[in-house]
Amino acid sequence: MRITLINPNITASMTDMIDAAAKRVAASGTEITTITSSIGPDALETKFDEFIAIPGVLKEVLRIEKEKSADAIIIACYGDPGLQAAKEIASVPVIGIAQASMYFAALVAAKFSIVTDLSSGVEGIEELVRNYGMERLCVSVRATEVPVLGFEEDHNEGLKALEEHSLLAMRQDGAEAICLACAGLVGFTEEMQKDLGIPVFDGVIAAVKLAEGLVAMGKTTSKYCTFRTPPVKEAAGMAAAWMDMLAQCK
Amino acid sequence: MRITLINPNITASMTDMIDAAAKRVAASGTEITTITSSIGPDALETKFDEFIAIPGVLKEVLRIEKEKSADAIIIACYGDPGLQAAKEIASVPVIGIAQASMYFAALVAAKFSIVTDLSSGVEGIEELVRNYGMERLCVSVRATEVPVLGFEEDHNEGLKALEEHSLLAMRQDGAEAICLACAGLVGFTEEMQKDLGIPVFDGVIAAVKLAEGLVAMGKTTSKYCTFRTPPVKEAAGMAAAWMDMLAQCK
Amino acid sequence: MRITLINPNITASMTDMIDAAAKRVAASGTEITTITSSIGPDALETKFDEFIAIPGVLKEVLRIEKEKSADAIIIACYGDPGLQAAKEIASVPVIGIAQASMYFAALVAAKFSIVTDLSSGVEGIEELVRNYGMERLCVSVRATEVPVLGFEEDHNEGLKALEEHSLLAMRQDGAEAICLACAGLVGFTEEMQKDLGIPVFDGVIAAVKLAEGLVAMGKTTSKYCTFRTPPVKEAAGMAAAWMDMLAQCK
Amino acid sequence: MRITLINPNITASMTDMIDAAAKRVAASGTEITTITSSIGPDALETKFDEFIAIPGVLKEVLRIEKEKSADAIIIACYGDPGLQAAKEIASVPVIGIAQASMYFAALVAAKFSIVTDLSSGVEGIEELVRNYGMERLCVSVRATEVPVLGFEEDHNEGLKALEEHSLLAMRQDGAEAICLACAGLVGFTEEMQKDLGIPVFDGVIAAVKLAEGLVAMGKTTSKYCTFRTPPVKEAAGMAAAWMDMLAQCK
Amino acid sequence: MRITLINPNITASMTDMIDAAAKRVAASGTEITTITSSIGPDALETKFDEFIAIPGVLKEVLRIEKEKSADAIIIACYGDPGLQAAKEIASVPVIGIAQASMYFAALVAAKFSIVTDLSSGVEGIEELVRNYGMERLCVSVRATEVPVLGFEEDHNEGLKALEEHSLLAMRQDGAEAICLACAGLVGFTEEMQKDLGIPVFDGVIAAVKLAEGLVAMGKTTSKYCTFRTPPVKEAAGMAAAWMDMLAQCK
Amino acid sequence: MRITLINPNITASMTDMIDAAAKRVAASGTEITTITSSIGPDALETKFDEFIAIPGVLKEVLRIEKEKSADAIIIACYGDPGLQAAKEIASVPVIGIAQASMYFAALVAAKFSIVTDLSSGVEGIEELVRNYGMERLCVSVRATEVPVLGFEEDHNEGLKALEEHSLLAMRQDGAEAICLACAGLVGFTEEMQKDLGIPVFDGVIAAVKLAEGLVAMGKTTSKYCTFRTPPVKEAAGMAAAWMDMLAQCK
Repeated sequence: MRITLINPNITASMTDMIDAAAKRVAASGTEITTITSSIGPDALETKFDEFIAIPGVLKEVLRIEKEKSADAIIIACYGDPGLQAAKEIASVPVIGIAQASMYFAALVAAKFSIVTDLSSGVEGIEELVRNYGMERLCVSVRATEVPVLGFEEDHNEGLKALEEHSLLAMRQDGAEAICLACAGLVGFTEEMQKDLGIPVFDGVIAAVKLAEGLVAMGKTTSKYCTFRTPPVKEAAGMAAAWMDMLAQCK
Repeated sequence: MRITLINPNITASMTDMIDAAAKRVAASGTEITTITSSIGPDALETKFDEFIAIPGVLKEVLRIEKEKSADAIIIACYGDPGLQAAKEIASVPVIGIAQASMYFAALVAAKFSIVTDLSSGVEGIEELVRNYGMERLCVSVRATEVPVLGFEEDHNEGLKALEEHSLLAMRQDGAEAICLACAGLVGFTEEMQKDLGIPVFDGVIAAVKLAEGLVAMGKTTSKYCTFRTPPVKEAAGMAAAWMDMLAQCK
Repeated sequence: MRITLINPNITASMTDMIDAAAKRVAASGTEITTITSSIGPDALETKFDEFIAIPGVLKEVLRIEKEKSADAIIIACYGDPGLQAAKEIASVPVIGIAQASMYFAALVAAKFSIVTDLSSGVEGIEELVRNYGMERLCVSVRATEVPVLGFEEDHNEGLKALEEHSLLAMRQDGAEAICLACAGLVGFTEEMQKDLGIPVFDGVIAAVKLAEGLVAMGKTTSKYCTFRTPPVKEAAGMAAAWMDMLAQCK
Repeated sequence: MRITLINPNITASMTDMIDAAAKRVAASGTEITTITSSIGPDALETKFDEFIAIPGVLKEVLRIEKEKSADAIIIACYGDPGLQAAKEIASVPVIGIAQASMYFAALVAAKFSIVTDLSSGVEGIEELVRNYGMERLCVSVRATEVPVLGFEEDHNEGLKALEEHSLLAMRQDGAEAICLACAGLVGFTEEMQKDLGIPVFDGVIAAVKLAEGLVAMGKTTSKYCTFRTPPVKEAAGMAAAWMDMLAQCK
Repeated sequence: MRITLINPNITASMTDMIDAAAKRVAASGTEITTITSSIGPDALETKFDEFIAIPGVLKEVLRIEKEKSADAIIIACYGDPGLQAAKEIASVPVIGIAQASMYFAALVAAKFSIVTDLSSGVEGIEELVRNYGMERLCVSVRATEVPVLGFEEDHNEGLKALEEHSLLAMRQDGAEAICLACAGLVGFTEEMQKDLGIPVFDGVIAAVKLAEGLVAMGKTTSKYCTFRTPPVKEAAGMAAAWMDMLAQCK
Repeated sequence: MRITLINPNITASMTDMIDAAAKRVAASGTEITTITSSIGPDALETKFDEFIAIPGVLKEVLRIEKEKSADAIIIACYGDPGLQAAKEIASVPVIGIAQASMYFAALVAAKFSIVTDLSSGVEGIEELVRNYGMERLCVSVRATEVPVLGFEEDHNEGLKALEEHSLLAMRQDGAEAICLACAGLVGFTEEMQKDLGIPVFDGVIAAVKLAEGLVAMGKTTSKYCTFRTPPVKEAAGMAAAWMDMLAQCK
């Protein structure tokens, strides 16, 4: 089974972390490939960042679809950027790491919280929480105000901030598990789980296990209505190139 | 007061319709400019279409922001594509036509329905309905299965389909007003309102009146948290060009 | 275009404030008339106050309907007292200032709060919030415990209380915009917006802009079901006089 | 224990029916008094009807409060008109028949429906349903389109219409119990329950049993916040008379 | 009228308290019987406790059903353990004390809180709150962390803890009434109500009054769908004995 | 990795089907054990059935916990009977097949429906849907009215009924995937998926993949609050035996 993870930002060190995490948890027989998008900012922290990075994600999905080079695709950024469009264009299952982490948290905890980097991103995560049905089970989204790349720069400060906000989530919001809202935080889950004494989820490894599950069960995205393959149409500018790629998938 | 409407698809005839409708309803003293995006497909009917068109929308918003050439911006496509990012990067108010049409409908009707083109797009509109708080007031989203450009090709067939589904919404769902889910349907509101005997809203003209209202009141997007101006960061590929445009707005 | 605002309490100084605010924001060509109800208490702070004031509001609406003296009506009290009945009896659009302020806040902020006078009125405002679909977007209703007329008596104390509770809403509840829950607070919005750095909405001016919008678009209350014109029927006591007025509107 | 029921419309025959029904179900030791309001239309079918009848209801509540002539008050109209204000001014418990019927239905059925007279009143009942927390348990509000007084005029036609819509509620909406949305329908419950084979609730008798319960337990309306006794204030017109009555209750 | 209360735990002193409370509030003519289950732990504080106690509750319900020895049944434990199954097997109404207390609280307060023993039980109560439709009206479930039997051991400490958490519910959550989440807390309501100045509800007495109401009105559980009488089927182990009891009820 | 599935009913043929399905989908290295409960009816179709079967489920969970004989436990009945208590007493993860099937369906479809046996069980499934956060994504629960064992008796009739109701769910409710609400229906998924053209989920295989995922990630039930290990306490009757088993797990 071949699973391809797409890192939607251009920071290769984050791709390496994602790749290592995915491989650590993959079943024997699962082949993990992780690629860095060639289009986008070095971190996705705003909706602007997200929208200028999504074409890069879709380019990779179209390439995979054309080459039939994966049995499942994972979008490895907690905003699940471009997920719905990727489901439209891919014939294999596509999983967002936010959705993956939340459903696993809901299996082991009555209530959970999401700890993220910046407060400006809270609204976007809350929208995902609603879309995935988790508005009651997810009792809070808390922001450390540490930027994504800051966690890599100073691991200990990052850990301290994550644990501090996780403890607030536990004591004030009743969280019984934590989801970390960034693919780049995968390196913190073990320490945090040990220190806090509750399950701490990273979306990357959660998505790998769900991808393996879907492939093993022989299920993929329903093409019945919402995620029907898009028709090829006239397009201009950059969009024309993407429409061409889509045409080649047919 | 200068209001700029952005047509996110590349179909100029649709831009003309939008422009004419906006001018018809604009207050004296309001200067309407409508532009066609240079990047995107000829109609936005899927999430794939939407995501490859959004960079084109944001490019125009960045240009307006840099040139300070508008007092308010309207994104004239019912999916409100790129709205949140546009709010981040613009200092003037930005209005999506979906949100505009729904709030006006909620002022004159206890319940309303949205009539759209394709059923594959219903889920996306329902997500907007939830985001704008209208999940109870909007009792249904009904699809005619006529594609966007089909309404232009055969007006009478289009009208028939729109009215048929509006009547179903009234009789089966209890709708007391209708919102038309496409900027290209602005030419149908008058006929439909006359035939159906209930208010029928187009988002373009609704957005113009809300834009005028916000400007007259001296209000713009809150920059307190969610819509903070994005920081300029490293980027690659197409995203680098957009990041450069953002840098020039500062 | 003629817009009539009805102040449902009998405090003429409040009527003057409302009138001035409405005129300040009205488009050229909009003729503003503001009237003081002749029936009711000097401020509406309880449901008892509201219910004994509503006949006074409806009397004015019936008079306007009979005389055809307005193109739109605004009920200028944040409880939107009598709004549904006014929609039944008027053929022109009727707007409540609570609903108007909330929809404008939702256009420029991901989340907003409402700041009101007394905590006993919070429940009533929360009911409006639910009715208008804003239960998620409105993150809190906070009460200063300053009575309505207290804001007129001591402007500085009033301002201090409003800003204190707005800051709590911003910091603790995540509010990114504020709605002031009383027509009598229209004089505070400019100062507050400057001090707090986020949009602050008054319902009176918001309602004027929405009324102008509806009239410009040629829309009025749907008479399809909920707001059908009431039939004239037998009545006794004070109600007989109102039923007579209704009969004269036919 | 003395329970006073207020019929908010002026139709004495309906008062008699209400009185008889209440007495049939009252415990030994419960003294039932039913009064006809002196202010209002002959039936409450619109919000206009309701708002011009509420002062009449409040007048009776104020009289009872002043005379201390009841241990509990029931507002015997399914719109629960004036209920919140009555709770503010009365020191004894006040119960609305809509709320009473819904809570009893929720005790014996997983899902129930409300069958009412006119479709224009559905929205108002749905608002009550939401306010009382019953939006999931109440699966539909169905209207027969028979006016209130029509049920008295032709019992058999009324019965047929009520049962037809109840059967639709059972078969299409999954209703397992029915609430009849009008005090004047109390005479239909027995026949309907026998014919349909499911519990059919009238609000009048439900409210009597809840009133008896509250009095027996020594509970009354919480005066902690929402239902605090209103302060006496300046008032004009009809409102001045009501304010005077309030002053006499202190 | 004969009402039987079942204490699902084996603590006889609690049965005595429940019996005394029920008798204090019962109408003349109501005959109260309270029985202690013979199967179960000495207190129900976990889901494990609850599930191993439910067969004991159902055994009593089956016995009552077979003997036709009650006109209504009350399950006197705040988790309403086994309530749905009891409704399936009994032909008389069955009431859970949690549901009973909440509906009475909703009649006299705009918002209420539930105060319980242990925080591990909060989730279970919140599930009941949702099932009964009270998720908005019940603003919080607060735990004192005093175990059930601790309240009997030290009344004063128990009272102090209950009032402390009730005050937090009033001040921080806006509660205007309190429900006590344990049949064993019935002895605290009077003191608490006096000290706090708001209505305090015990579920046992609330359930008695609702049971009397249902019987007086001639209503019982709807057998239309959800609560149909279960068919007798093959069973093994302990379940066989229960299935036999069910067979004898037919 | 050792996964034990518990069939909560006593029908061994169903256990065999469950076992075969689980083994078919299990990863290499996963050891599947499926056991038949020794306590319970031959099928769980009512709440009565469920509650008299749960002690049998908990007995097996306690045995596994004491023997440390599994790395994850699956309760293989769509009602997820006893799941919360099992989470309290087990140190390894416990998964219910209803929750498992729904989360997988939500990964590949915007909306899904659940098709079950009897309409009397719909309410119970809807309660699970709410508990797991799926009330919007699960658009309907439809019942075939074929009893559980009927599907084994006549496969073709069963298939016909399942597909008929699935098609209704697709056409009338907008379902894009189907979950089969019974462990005994695992043999229908492949045929149905082929005939309907959309993903069809069985909970047993879904739960196996989630169990593998949790174990691979090193996560188990949070013991922070809701699922704390129950204290051993005094108990009588059957409950005493269970309490003894619990004591032996410590």
